[in-house]
Amino acid sequence: MAVYTDVSDTDLTAFLSAFDLGGVLAFKGIAEGVENSNFFLRTERGSFILTLYEKRVREEDLPFFLGLLEHLSAKGIQCPLPVRAHDGKAWRMLAGRPAALMTFLSGLSPKRPDAQQCGELGAALARLHLAGADYKLTRPNALSVEGWKTLVKQCEVKANGVHMGLSTSIGTELRWLEQHWPSGLPSGLIHADLFPDNVFFMEGKLSGLIDFYFACNDAYAYDIAVCLNAWCFEHDGAFNITKGRALLSTYRSVRPLTGAEVAALPVLARGAAFRFLLTRLYDWINRDPSALVRPKDPLEYLTKLRFHQSAAGPQSYGWPE
Amino acid sequence: MAVYTDVSDTDLTAFLSAFDLGGVLAFKGIAEGVENSNFFLRTERGSFILTLYEKRVREEDLPFFLGLLEHLSAKGIQCPLPVRAHDGKAWRMLAGRPAALMTFLSGLSPKRPDAQQCGELGAALARLHLAGADYKLTRPNALSVEGWKTLVKQCEVKANGVHMGLSTSIGTELRWLEQHWPSGLPSGLIHADLFPDNVFFMEGKLSGLIDFYFACNDAYAYDIAVCLNAWCFEHDGAFNITKGRALLSTYRSVRPLTGAEVAALPVLARGAAFRFLLTRLYDWINRDPSALVRPKDPLEYLTKLRFHQSAAGPQSYGWPE
Repeated sequence: MAVYTDVSDTDLTAFLSAFDLGGVLAFKGIAEGVENSNFFLRTERGSFILTLYEKRVREEDLPFFLGLLEHLSAKGIQCPLPVRAHDGKAWRMLAGRPAALMTFLSGLSPKRPDAQQCGELGAALARLHLAGADYKLTRPNALSVEGWKTLVKQCEVKANGVHMGLSTSIGTELRWLEQHWPSGLPSGLIHADLFPDNVFFMEGKLSGLIDFYFACNDAYAYDIAVCLNAWCFEHDGAFNITKGRALLSTYRSVRPLTGAEVAALPVLARGAAFRFLLTRLYDWINRDPSALVRPKDPLEYLTKLRFHQSAAGPQSYGWPE
Repeated sequence: MAVYTDVSDTDLTAFLSAFDLGGVLAFKGIAEGVENSNFFLRTERGSFILTLYEKRVREEDLPFFLGLLEHLSAKGIQCPLPVRAHDGKAWRMLAGRPAALMTFLSGLSPKRPDAQQCGELGAALARLHLAGADYKLTRPNALSVEGWKTLVKQCEVKANGVHMGLSTSIGTELRWLEQHWPSGLPSGLIHADLFPDNVFFMEGKLSGLIDFYFACNDAYAYDIAVCLNAWCFEHDGAFNITKGRALLSTYRSVRPLTGAEVAALPVLARGAAFRFLLTRLYDWINRDPSALVRPKDPLEYLTKLRFHQSAAGPQSYGWPE
């Protein structure tokens, strides 16, 4: 949940004077996203999400993120569309932060996605990759191998305090991934954080994708690997191959995978698990008890990493040979 | 902000099957109220607030609270109206808690109410008192003198750790209030917690009252005293007599005050400040660092208490004689 910044009724009124949305009917802080402050806004013209960008999203990245949402919306991807003000700007300051107003998407995020939802996701991910392929702006993936090195350095001293032996485990895994990380795979715009809470469904159909603030340029198959981690494990830590198969088969029905991409799935899945292990570990070690956010359990991703380390090949994920 | 309990999409679907509200279009945890978990729900039939009652609201009090909302709505008070399920029940279990679905009220809560809003509030409070006068169920005020005694006992050892000398101050104030607390004032149903964040406005007009979970039977003028504390002080701690006058004059234009009520205003204001000082102090001392709620500053109410202790009489609050 996330509302880091209070927005007063007078601040809101001043902000909205730059738009033409009619009177405000409702305005409520919502528990959505963990990086920014989000508010539900209803005016006489409709429903919106107001996002205040907190420190983790840099203002200089906003043209990339907001332009991407406009690009994807124009291509028919169901994602939030920034509402531009009278002056044509897609964001402006509010309560000391850059803030953007977005269209409201209907739907519910699944807490425990089923195989059918994993199938819906796979196809949507492939459509996202195709739609983003000609997006002009670029942004490197700050949370790939170089970013992991920094995170390992920042976490290794305190890692054993979180889990016995974790310091050695992350050092060893980093070296292995540095040696085995693939290059030259088909790349382009990826979401990089497409967890179930960033995906909406209505009556079994996928109705929207949100939270593009980790979007960047990287291997498409890495985005699949993130989703295999986030969607296809059961709560007891077991990988559900039926869900993996559903995700992969619908993905490739929209965007075929090359042999190199398929072969790289296990190492990419390992890297993706490592990325979330590290960022959760960092957040756990550096958590601020006064922040109104409960840090996520890093060890969930240690369990997933172990699975990937022992995977026999793409078939372990349900690759339909 | 408050979302203590996660509600999964499957739990929600099961809960809503007892109603006839059509498909779910949106469901988001919202930062509203501090005692319960609240969610914004939009279905094909409209917008609602779903409240899960956490430990501070006892299930045996729900007939009083939910019946009160129905009673007040029927009398034209703009407050949430519980939506009864097919079986006629106004609440049922969800994620292990009693939960109720309410109609959604439009409007914005003022962060710094102006004198006009204080005037709107005074009239609305008086209308609430008149509308609640014939409500059949009753509930004692657990946070009056007897409740304060308990809170002082629970806080006095640690109070000096919050503010030097606070332990003595609260003991002395308790004894003074025990001796001077008025009895026999006109009494009935009061809100008892009508802070600005529990009141909505649209275009300057009061559009709704929410959060009746401290409602109880007590002196009407005590409810006025709560509002003088919550609405009429500036952020620098000064009492704004223009706001006090606005609140009192509109109140009495709807429900005239007796001489005894007017004379009792200073001691009632003192008691009301003491009540919020004590509950905030208790929450501060007993705060759970893992809870996603930031405790409110108790010392704000110590400053207010000092003002009331030195008040010359009802005229200090803007009583218009």
